[in-house]
Amino acid sequence: MNDESTQAGSPGSRQRAIVLLSGGLDSATVLAIAKAEGLEPLALSFRYGQRHLIELEAARQVAAAAGVHEHLVVELDLRSIGGSALTADLPVPKDRDLQAAEVPVTYVPARNTIFLAYALALAEARGIGDIYIGINAIDGSGYPDCRPEYLAAFQQLSALGTRAGVEGRPARIHAPLINLSKVKIIQRGLELGVDYGLTRSCYDPDQAGRGCGHCDSCLVRRRAFRQLGLVDPAPYADQ
Amino acid sequence: MNDESTQAGSPGSRQRAIVLLSGGLDSATVLAIAKAEGLEPLALSFRYGQRHLIELEAARQVAAAAGVHEHLVVELDLRSIGGSALTADLPVPKDRDLQAAEVPVTYVPARNTIFLAYALALAEARGIGDIYIGINAIDGSGYPDCRPEYLAAFQQLSALGTRAGVEGRPARIHAPLINLSKVKIIQRGLELGVDYGLTRSCYDPDQAGRGCGHCDSCLVRRRAFRQLGLVDPAPYADQ
Repeated sequence: MNDESTQAGSPGSRQRAIVLLSGGLDSATVLAIAKAEGLEPLALSFRYGQRHLIELEAARQVAAAAGVHEHLVVELDLRSIGGSALTADLPVPKDRDLQAAEVPVTYVPARNTIFLAYALALAEARGIGDIYIGINAIDGSGYPDCRPEYLAAFQQLSALGTRAGVEGRPARIHAPLINLSKVKIIQRGLELGVDYGLTRSCYDPDQAGRGCGHCDSCLVRRRAFRQLGLVDPAPYADQ
Repeated sequence: MNDESTQAGSPGSRQRAIVLLSGGLDSATVLAIAKAEGLEPLALSFRYGQRHLIELEAARQVAAAAGVHEHLVVELDLRSIGGSALTADLPVPKDRDLQAAEVPVTYVPARNTIFLAYALALAEARGIGDIYIGINAIDGSGYPDCRPEYLAAFQQLSALGTRAGVEGRPARIHAPLINLSKVKIIQRGLELGVDYGLTRSCYDPDQAGRGCGHCDSCLVRRRAFRQLGLVDPAPYADQ
């Protein structure tokens, strides 16, 4: 699926970059950062059997608001793999201790590896040299595939596993949020004009697409807005 | 899709391993090797928009002949990514010089990375510790993602990007053919009883599923059988 926005300006005039866009707060910020760095973003989203499909509609709105010329939504079957509360019929934990050390049940096995593998394939096929992803090791949920060492390993894979890499110009993987707190991420996004009211981060939204307010993702996000003296502009069921 | 074979024996009595199974000569050999090593193979294939869909039927037959209890076929949309003669409307090169240095047009961008990412997700979700893949650096077609250094990079990703890896028991990626010639691969498979008449390797088969005899894959395969004083038992259109 390609969505062409109506914004003026030629998509060919700037260097392109692939931006993984979930519709959440982090990836919306990354999209704004890629644009601020002078790149023309090609937004890449996945319909992967997630329970929180509202995020794809959020991704569409975020991309449109940012004037993205091409937004590709790839169908992925992760349900056949299972193993996560985000794609299977397992309960999403609520009001969990965010300091807990274990990898939570909302972790989707190897999801970022699959997403980045697709981005790498698209970069290779289109001759695009930069890939942006909104992974975060600080205020994330303790997922193994959100850490700097993981990012370095994938960069190595980009260098060794592609034609571009063999030719000495591997696609670079950028994770500009990886060492930022959620507060810093929101501050950066607000400076860049991100409308966080369009973004959706909840793992377990209601039928109207409103956040539950109590999953890890809602807890981290709302706490950060509170710390900034702001109210999270996204809708919540408990408001 | 799960195909249950009718072979006797409990699938739970041996340690499981994921085997990437394309229906070609190499992966059929790898399947036999995994079995010979005492593992219970879970075969994993992909319907990825390939022109040579006959290979999925071959994969089904190879898995059945090997008594595989579970054969998972995952749908992947690689056509939306494009960039390869195997998934797009580009001509498959015929009677090419196999010593040529360039990466040929049949290379599917980052395909093995996507396949291995899925295998890694499945291993993580099912608690499986071993993944087998039939990549080969010797008589392959010069694809970057068939080399030992690529394999090492993916092993590192397995260690760093999964819960199992963080817990000190990353899924191991096995590529038992990586340094074997096609002749040696066939010799090993014949020792293990592989019926190569069931396998299909051609990039451009005819409607009846017969090999063209002239793409890289057919050239390498038939030459190896000739060198062994054998006739390739797979059907070819020019026979």
